[in-house]
This record gives sequence, structure tokens and C-alpha cells, in this order.
Amino acid sequence: MSGSLHALFNPRSIALVGATDKSGWSLSTFDNLRQYGFAGPVYLVNPRTEVVHGQRAYPSLAAVPGPVDLAYVMVPTPLVLSVLQEGARVGIRSYVILTAGFGETGEQGRQREEEVAAFARCHDLTVLGPNGNGYINAAANVTPYGLPIPAPLLSGPVGVVLQSGALASSILAFAQARNIGISLLTSMGNETLVSVTDVVDYFVDDPATRAIALFLESVRRPVEFARVVRRAVAAGKPVVALKIGSSQLASTTARAHTGALVGDDDVVDAVFRKLGVVRVRSLEDLIITAGLLGEVGPLPGGRLGVVTPSGGASEIIADRAEDEGLDLPPFTPETCARLTAILPEFATVQNPLDVTGYVVVDRTLLTRALEVVAEDPGVDAVLLLSDLPRQPPADPAPMLALYEATAARIRTAPRPVVVVGNVLTDITEYGRAVQRQANYPHVVGGIEHGMSAIGAAVRWSQAVRADGDPARPDAPAPIVRGASTGTWVEHQAAAFLADNGVPVVAAELAPDEDSAVEAAAKFGYPVVLKAVADGLAHKSDAGGVRLALAGADDVRRAHREVCAALRARGATGVSTLVQPHRSGGVELLVGVVRDPAWGPVLAIGIGGVWVEALRDSVLRLLPVDRADVRRALGELRGADLLRGARGAEPADLDALVDVIVKVGDLADGLGDRLEALEINPLLVCGSRIEALDALVTWRG
Amino acid sequence: MSGSLHALFNPRSIALVGATDKSGWSLSTFDNLRQYGFAGPVYLVNPRTEVVHGQRAYPSLAAVPGPVDLAYVMVPTPLVLSVLQEGARVGIRSYVILTAGFGETGEQGRQREEEVAAFARCHDLTVLGPNGNGYINAAANVTPYGLPIPAPLLSGPVGVVLQSGALASSILAFAQARNIGISLLTSMGNETLVSVTDVVDYFVDDPATRAIALFLESVRRPVEFARVVRRAVAAGKPVVALKIGSSQLASTTARAHTGALVGDDDVVDAVFRKLGVVRVRSLEDLIITAGLLGEVGPLPGGRLGVVTPSGGASEIIADRAEDEGLDLPPFTPETCARLTAILPEFATVQNPLDVTGYVVVDRTLLTRALEVVAEDPGVDAVLLLSDLPRQPPADPAPMLALYEATAARIRTAPRPVVVVGNVLTDITEYGRAVQRQANYPHVVGGIEHGMSAIGAAVRWSQAVRADGDPARPDAPAPIVRGASTGTWVEHQAAAFLADNGVPVVAAELAPDEDSAVEAAAKFGYPVVLKAVADGLAHKSDAGGVRLALAGADDVRRAHREVCAALRARGATGVSTLVQPHRSGGVELLVGVVRDPAWGPVLAIGIGGVWVEALRDSVLRLLPVDRADVRRALGELRGADLLRGARGAEPADLDALVDVIVKVGDLADGLGDRLEALEINPLLVCGSRIEALDALVTWRG
Repeated sequence: MSGSLHALFNPRSIALVGATDKSGWSLSTFDNLRQYGFAGPVYLVNPRTEVVHGQRAYPSLAAVPGPVDLAYVMVPTPLVLSVLQEGARVGIRSYVILTAGFGETGEQGRQREEEVAAFARCHDLTVLGPNGNGYINAAANVTPYGLPIPAPLLSGPVGVVLQSGALASSILAFAQARNIGISLLTSMGNETLVSVTDVVDYFVDDPATRAIALFLESVRRPVEFARVVRRAVAAGKPVVALKIGSSQLASTTARAHTGALVGDDDVVDAVFRKLGVVRVRSLEDLIITAGLLGEVGPLPGGRLGVVTPSGGASEIIADRAEDEGLDLPPFTPETCARLTAILPEFATVQNPLDVTGYVVVDRTLLTRALEVVAEDPGVDAVLLLSDLPRQPPADPAPMLALYEATAARIRTAPRPVVVVGNVLTDITEYGRAVQRQANYPHVVGGIEHGMSAIGAAVRWSQAVRADGDPARPDAPAPIVRGASTGTWVEHQAAAFLADNGVPVVAAELAPDEDSAVEAAAKFGYPVVLKAVADGLAHKSDAGGVRLALAGADDVRRAHREVCAALRARGATGVSTLVQPHRSGGVELLVGVVRDPAWGPVLAIGIGGVWVEALRDSVLRLLPVDRADVRRALGELRGADLLRGARGAEPADLDALVDVIVKVGDLADGLGDRLEALEINPLLVCGSRIEALDALVTWRG
Repeated sequence: MSGSLHALFNPRSIALVGATDKSGWSLSTFDNLRQYGFAGPVYLVNPRTEVVHGQRAYPSLAAVPGPVDLAYVMVPTPLVLSVLQEGARVGIRSYVILTAGFGETGEQGRQREEEVAAFARCHDLTVLGPNGNGYINAAANVTPYGLPIPAPLLSGPVGVVLQSGALASSILAFAQARNIGISLLTSMGNETLVSVTDVVDYFVDDPATRAIALFLESVRRPVEFARVVRRAVAAGKPVVALKIGSSQLASTTARAHTGALVGDDDVVDAVFRKLGVVRVRSLEDLIITAGLLGEVGPLPGGRLGVVTPSGGASEIIADRAEDEGLDLPPFTPETCARLTAILPEFATVQNPLDVTGYVVVDRTLLTRALEVVAEDPGVDAVLLLSDLPRQPPADPAPMLALYEATAARIRTAPRPVVVVGNVLTDITEYGRAVQRQANYPHVVGGIEHGMSAIGAAVRWSQAVRADGDPARPDAPAPIVRGASTGTWVEHQAAAFLADNGVPVVAAELAPDEDSAVEAAAKFGYPVVLKAVADGLAHKSDAGGVRLALAGADDVRRAHREVCAALRARGATGVSTLVQPHRSGGVELLVGVVRDPAWGPVLAIGIGGVWVEALRDSVLRLLPVDRADVRRALGELRGADLLRGARGAEPADLDALVDVIVKVGDLADGLGDRLEALEINPLLVCGSRIEALDALVTWRG
């Protein structure tokens, strides 16, 4: 679709169909095209008036005297289809439909939208909308957009796609305030034909776009979205997304406990992580992060050298660096010596560096310190804390010279220098002029959002390097004995896991007291006795698990009580299972659930029966490889437990990773047949790794 | 000191001592006083020149022709004392010392600072600094400040105290950009005499100040700071603080595990919470939150009605509301009916409300919806999403009328209305003019920071209501048998707890195998056997705890192995302790450590031996009452475990709270004698609450 989108976004002539002085949308669109220098003809179409917006109007598209590349459609809903029909007859390929009243309003609208879509598909028309405000191609001065565009419109490297058109003016105003230029902004509307994914695809090939900012309410075509984002990553164009809906923590599956750990929003996190999409949490971070990535580019690593004129600010930066997982390593002895030679005696030479208030006396201090720090081999990038001026000083010349000198140092620095302001204020007209005159680089908006952006820029580079979905040897086909329907619990689930190479604790089914005691004697005391019944999933919740039984009498009593309790609740197929009682070690949950959009999701959690209450879990989209699983384990808050905290034997991480990858491959290999698979707990005790309990739910 | 600070901040005449054309500080101070309309005489003192800054200079303070209320001192460090001496002779009581080179530079400077301090104390002089830039009294147009003050200087309700002077211009620029006025801003310098606490104390009585913003590197006089902040709370003046240093997670005590949970920064959190200080994490949040509290005031509750012109924005607000613990309750049926009558057919009537893009057609939609939502009895406050205009539209009159109408509705609304903009951009000159002409209320800077500020404003009101340090019946005096020195472990610590009414698990000391088996038989199997040795604190780490021993043979073997292991490590006083093995229930850590600045801190954590790895803990300053402890338990991530998650018996929270309050009172009653007290685990199993292990470290 990339070619037809190029035509959509780069017309040489535009017709505004339904143009009228009575509509604010019509007026804005016309004004925008004129104000921002659209070079071609703009034809106004209105069958009932001869003059609109002070210009001659034509009664129909057919009556327009020249060729039309793009029709911008504002007619009432019932007339939209006829406009497309007429347009197709006269050879117009590209449309923006501003008109609302389609699928978003109910059944009749949905039918109308489907008619429009069918006609467009049949005649190979490219349609943006309906129910969208259009687009702003700042790179080419093409601005068919139905709301006022705040001036000045800055052209630059950031492509923006919005699923909420009402936010466009805020985003444009904010980008402008930060002197961040956009290449193209689109307001998607209903995405009947052209989708967010299509526009991202266009951006990958658009030379004007170096970073992509998305405001997403939902991702409509996950598979294609993933493909296109991978293409953007491969092209070195970072995708930054503000995805809303984190408060709608709807569980995607009810049966397995894993479901409680897998909110929709957590899945989005896992998906974005897998695809290399940088997720942000505010409109400010969306534009500031995309601006940094577009203007300065990704950062090679997370070791920052920091140069500031303020002790307080450098401590704020240190705090925020820790939040973002960035490292402020000590400077090398050579760097320290060079800084000591430059700085006043009372300065403390350290990273982050405060060159002190003496900068009021010697204005070159900051720039000279920057030069030294940028040459420190221990840092990957340098943060220079410096604001553009807001108002002209009494004598601008020396100030301008200083900005020029700093800009020159930054250009010749051996590693990237990110200039960050103290707080998030607009770059003023004067600041903008200084930036232009001094050829000064991009200034990121304030420490708070700047550190988020730097953190994201570093993580993007790391994610892209770590990526690649490496070809792994094919996992063996899963072995499934019996009909894969319903839910398999305890012994059936355990046998299934064992068949597929997942280690499972020893266990014996004990339908009566004597066989329970016999099994216990075989394993050695203490033992665990668990309830078994048809369809019984959550034994702990039902009081069906008895731990640490120390002798035969305890086993008999537990057997009697558990069975009686089950029968009292009307359970059928009542029996018990006897296992050795394991103590010590760390209990994990390892589970897979199916997300309706994104497919199987692996959850790893800490805590066994406590897993939900502790909410210490990480998610990954399947398939996973060993490196993914190892990183995921490291992200658990309780990761130290696996490293041998409190005198416990450290877990054999290689063996644990093997088991989890095996579970992932098993679930992945089962494809659509599997609804959920859950091991809880998976006991990890040194190199002894055993599933103590499991549950498999089939989709059949 | 409040009276002398009033004199310091409200002089009728000022002398700049050490004024010279060669100093940027001198020039800025002089310019600031002139530019911002200081009404009284400004005398320049310089013994070597007759004209400074184009004005006559006097050779000394004694030569100045009129009375001087404030001396602003910029002379070289060695001369500062003599200026004070001369000033005292001629009756000057108030000083700002800009000069640096004192305690911050080393021993000689420290001595000089002490001389200045001693002289000032002796002669009852009020001194701000040294090594500070002065202050800006915007309410009274008194601006003896050594750096350029960005124009315009807006006077308003926010008092600002900075421990880092270099941030002042960023903070002023940011406040100005948001149209937030300040009453007084002080740059503290070394706080040799006037401290942050003194200035807060002044603000409590200052009618111009309604909210107080602090940038803190450290709190130097904790007891007085606490007293003054309580006075501010009682006066209804919120204190908002950005306290840096969260990355310096130095543990305050090494001995007890509690120490690992109690970082300095966590203690600051607990202190601020106890005092009712609103803690923020960025400069933007500092000013935006103080601005909201100063301009709109505290909010009565956390149930928000939200009115917006954008679906995307209302979803961002919903996400952020969840982060901040704010509630967006459904509107009442009456509100819904009234909104349905106003809104276009395709609008969805819900909270948060999107009045839809139809607002382009009917500009009054937002204001009329606001009026309805503000009357909904189910909300405590209303959030109106609306920006001020950035630039004049073609026809300003109708727009202005709309802002006036909205402002009128907000003034007459039955509950507070907080106006929040979409993104954090400056309020432009034009926006400021519209705000003034329409008498339009404060507009909070963007959804992201606005929601943080609203959350803080609600929490402040709640904290203030919950506060009061209620008089509780005096706790009994602690019973301490034996010399309170060193560390008491297991049996000694258990006896101490039992003496003081804290329930402790049954246990018997078993020096040999036979007595261990005897004790086990008495308790019933399974049992636990623990190592006891002189000074042995972390048994688990040393492999000295054997759980779930099922019979006599197991007990004998465990006893042999544990004792042998201890002796092999050279331990003395080797013995064992036998206890019943408890299974099920929830294990907590309850510990108290002494913070050097703030005194005893209570930590409650989840997880027994896992407590450090899980990092699920909350802190409170002692003393605590039942309500404090109940809230603290509710803040644990794993709080559901206590509520009976996974079929477990719910904890008897009343009994648990009793035990924890008892531990807190015990530690508090021990005062300075106690270094640390730790129960880990405290087993909670329904109403059975028992300390299974404990540790007491004395300061002696």
C-alpha cells in the first residue's frame, strides 16, 4: 500500500467536497492549505453556492476544470458514497473522509461504512477515515486538515499517527513548543481502509521520517502491525507509542491463575518489548522521546557522563538515572585530572559533574568541561544540562558566541551529546532564533522527561541489538495422549508434562487410606496429600492440600478428611495423590495463556500459592529462547531468591531456563489447541527442578 | 525567629556592600531591585570607587546617609566578618551574605563561617547565607537576588525555599510559564543561621503564602522541621517537597535484616507521610502541585467527575487516575439524563465524559456539560480538560465570551473544579491576557503532571484529616531482664518479647539429642530444630534451621549435623532450640531500627526469609496507633494474603494490629537503649499470631 499512500499524502491538487462557509471544518481545511503553502490548486465543490471562502465553487467533482489528486470529503453521511462514485468516474484515487456518522454510531452507520469500504476496495481507491480530520504533511506543505493548525508548523523528523484526532492540536502545539518538527501527522478516524499499520509502513520508506510516534487506543491488525514494526526496526527507525487503556485490566482468561497475572495491558508491554516498540506513559514523553530519537538518534549504551552548572540538578539527574537503569560511571583518572585543571578549586570532580556557580564568572566553564567529559572512554554518551535563553540579554553577542562554541564542541565530540534543559518550558521565539543562528543542537525538554527519553533511547538500542528472533532448532512435536478437551489436572497434567520432558515430582494416586500410607512409606516422611476429583482445579482454595504429614496416622486422617470434604461438596472421581513433601527452595509459577490478539503469552511468577498476592511476575510472547527466559527471570523482583539469597542453594539457572524454554516450546507447539497451561508451583531447589502441580486447559 | 525574618524579608532600605561593575552578581542584584520596583533607597558601598552601576557609591556602611534595614554582602570572604561588625555598629539587623568560600570549601572556611555565626548570634543579627543568592519577595517587590530574575515576576500564593540556588531561575521560569505566582523565594546557601525550617515557619504566618514548595538536599534540624511542618498543616498550608537523594540507598543499620528494608530515602517517605508533607519527584511536579494547592486549594476527596472534549484524552485521564488512586465513579442517573439531553446522539454518557468533536459546532457544549457534572452528588471535585488559547483567533470576541461563561460556571459550581490543559506547554502572553480578561481560574499544566498534582492534593487532605497523633493510653514501661547490651537472639529475644506481651511460639532449648527428641515428642511432629550459638544472628544463612522433622531419627540427625556445623565454624555456646513446625499462614517481618535523624522506624514486610528478596514492605515512624498499622498493612502488595487469599483462613487483623502496635510501643518505650528489634517471621494464621524468631540489638 506504500505507493498509494505516497499518492494520498503528496497530491498536486485537492478538491474540498462539501466546502461551505458554514462549517468550521471546511474553513480550517481551506485556511490550512493556504496558510501553509500548498502549491497546487484547491478546488471547492458545493452544488448550492457559487462562492465559498471567497473563491469560486464548482457544483460537482466532474465540473472541476483540472485534474484532482485528492478529494477531501465533508458532505453529509448519506452522500459520501456518491462522492466516491463520482470521484472514481473522473479518475480520483485518493480520499480523506472527514464526515462522521459511520460505524462509530451504530448499525446503520456500520452498513454505510461497509458500502463505502466495498466500493473503495472494488475501485482501488485509497481512503483515510471516515471520521478523521485528515493529515498534515509538513515535509511537503500539504495540510488537508479539518482543525486549526497552530503556527508555526515545524517540519522535521518525527512521523505521528493518532487514533484520537482531538489530540492532534495539543501534540502539534507541544512539538512546536519543544522545536520538534514533524514529517507527517495523520488522524486515523475509523481506519476503514488505511490503518495505523499502513501509515507506519509508509514511514519506513519515507526519507523525511526518522522516528515514529503513535497514539494508540487499540492495535487492530496485530500480525501485520508486528511485521511492519519489525521493518521499521530493521530500517533503524524507532517506534514510540503511547498506548492507553492500562486501567482496563481485564483478565484474558478465567480458568488458570496465570490469567490473573496477564492483564491486557501487561500483554501490550510484552508485545511492544518483543517488537522493540518504545512504550511511553504521557503525551509529553511521546513527543520528547520521539524527538530525541529523531533529532539525536538512538544512544549506543547506558553509561552517561553528566555535565551541569548545578549541584541540585546533578543530584536530580542521579536519582532519575537510577530510575531509568542508566549508569553514571566514575570518570577515568585522566578525565579527573583534566577537569581539576579547568574547574575552580572548590569544585568536586565527579560524575555527575557540577562545574559550580563560578560559571557566572567564567561562562566557558561548562563548554570546556563538556569537551573533556565527551572524551572519557568510560561513557557511551554525554548529558549536557543547558537551557536556551528565553529572552534577549542586554548584550546578546557574547552569549551567542558561547552557544556557537558549544555547538561546535558537540558536533566534533567523539560520542553523542544530549543537551537537556532544566525544566519543561517552551522554547521561546528568541530561544529558537539563538538555536538557529548558533546552529545549536536539539534541546530536550527538562530533566524529568529528558531522562525518560534517554532511558528509552538506550533501551531501544539494546532491544534492537538483542533482537533477531534467532533460528532455534525446532522443538519436538508435543506428545498428547488421550482426547485434548476440558481441563487436565494433577496426575493427568503431570503425566502430560513428563511425556514432554518437563520434570515432575514423584507422585502416586492413592484411592484409599492403605494405598496412601503405602505410597508415603515409599517416598519417606514427611509427605503431602492432595485431593483429586473430576474437574477440581484449585485445590488450595478448596482446602484440599495437606502438607508435612509426619506419619501413617497423619496420612490416614488427612485422607479421610480430604475425601469426606470433597464428597460433602458433591465431587465425583474422588481420590488422593501422595507426594514427597519438599521444603526449602523457591516456588515459581510458569504458565501460558492465549491472548485473543497476540497468541500465547508466557508468564513467570514468584511465590507458588502466593503468586497472585505478590504480583511479582513477568510476561513474554512465545516463542522464547534461552536468552529471553534468562532476562525475564532477572526482571523478577524476587530474582535474588534464585541467586541463593539467605544461605539457600543458588538455583541452577541453566537447568531452570531449560525447563521454562521446554514449557514454552510445548505450549507453542500445541498452537490453537491449547487454552492455558500452568505449572504452580515449579519448585526450584539447586539443580532439582520439579513441577509440583499443574493444570492444562484445552480449547476443544 | 518569625519576627526577625519579617524584618529580613521586608526591608525599607538596602545597602549592597561590595557592589562593583565588575561583578555579575552585583549588577544582577542592583538591576533586580530597580526592575522589580523596590520602593526604598538602595545604597552602594565600595571603598575604592565613587560611582558603581552609574550611581554614587559610599566607602563604608557608616558613610551611608540614611538608615539601612538590610545589608546584601558581596565582599571577599575574609572581609565578611568586618562588614557585619561595622553593620552591627550602625544598627543594621538583617544580612544576606552572597559571598562563598566558607564551610563548603574546607576547614579554613568552616572556621570563618563559625566566626561569622558566633558574631551574628552574639549581636542578634539575622543572616541568610553565606553562599546563597538571596531572596525574591515578589509579594512586596523586594528582590535582593544575585542572579537575573526572568521577567515577568509573578506575585502569588506559593512560597519557595531552595537548598540549591542554581535551580532558582529554572523554577521561576517554570512558575512563570504556568502563570503561577510566588510570594517569596529564598536561596538558602549554607544555612549557617537562617534555616529552611525558619523560612517555613515564616511562611506559616505570612498572609501572602498559601502553599509551600521546598527543594531539599537534606533536612538539617529534624525535630524543629517536624514541629514547623505540623504548624503549617494546622494552618491549612500544604508543604510540597522535592527531596533528592533517592539513589543513595545507604542502609542505616547493618545488623538486622530490617536495615535492608530501611533505606534513607524510604525513611524520608515515612517521615513526610507522617508529617503530611507532599513528596513529589520532579521540579515540574513541585511547582504544579504547589500551584494547584495554592491557587485552587486542597481537594475534599478522591472521587472525580471528568469533562473533556476528547475520547483519547479521557482515556489517558482514566489511566492516570488509576495510578493516582483516584476514583471516577459512574454519574448518577439524573446526571446521565441531563447530559443525554445536552450531548449529541452519538456521544457516550459516562465518566470520564467526552463531549465529542461536536464541540467544534457547538462551543458551549463543554461548559454546559461541566455545569451538570459539577452538580453530581457522587463526585468530590471536577476535572475540566481545557487549554487557554496560545494565539489570538481571527475573531476573539466569541471565544472570550466562552471563557467568561466557563469561568462564571466554575465560580458558582457546588464543588471544586480543577481546569487541566492537555499537555505541558507555557501559557502564552495571549493566554495570560485571556485568563485575566475572562477572570478565568488557574489552569494546571497538562494531564500527566496535573493528575499527579490532583492525586497529591487529595492525599494531602486525607492525610491531614487522618492526622492528629491521637492521645493513646500510655504503653506500659518495657520489662528488660538482664543487661541490655550486645545482641539477643532466639531464646533470649523470645523471652524478652513474651515478658512484654508479644506472643511467641512455644520452644525448648535442647543442648543434646535426647532433650531435643523429648521436646519434639512434647510438641508433636513435625518439628523445627534451630541452631543456637553465641552471637549467631542469621541462622538461615548459616544453614542452621531444619524444618519439618518428621520423627525422632530426623531430630537426632538434625541435632548432630547442626551442632557439628556450628562447632566446625568455631562457634561457642552451641545448642539447639526445638519448636513445633508451623505450616500454612502468612509470615511477616516486623522490625524497628533507629534512623540517626528521625529516630525509631517500624518496618512491616511480607515473606519471612524471603522478605528482602520480595521487597514488599512499608515503613512508619514511631509511635504508631492502630489506624496507622492497619493502613500500613493495607499498603503491602501482598495484603491479599492476610485477607485470606487462596482458601487460607483470613488473618485476624484486629489481633495482628494489636501485636504490631505492641511491638511499636515496646520499641518506642525503650528509647535510645534500642538499636534494632526484629521479629522474622511473625507467623499469622487466622487468629494465631506468633513470633517464630526474633532478634534484639542494644545500643549499649
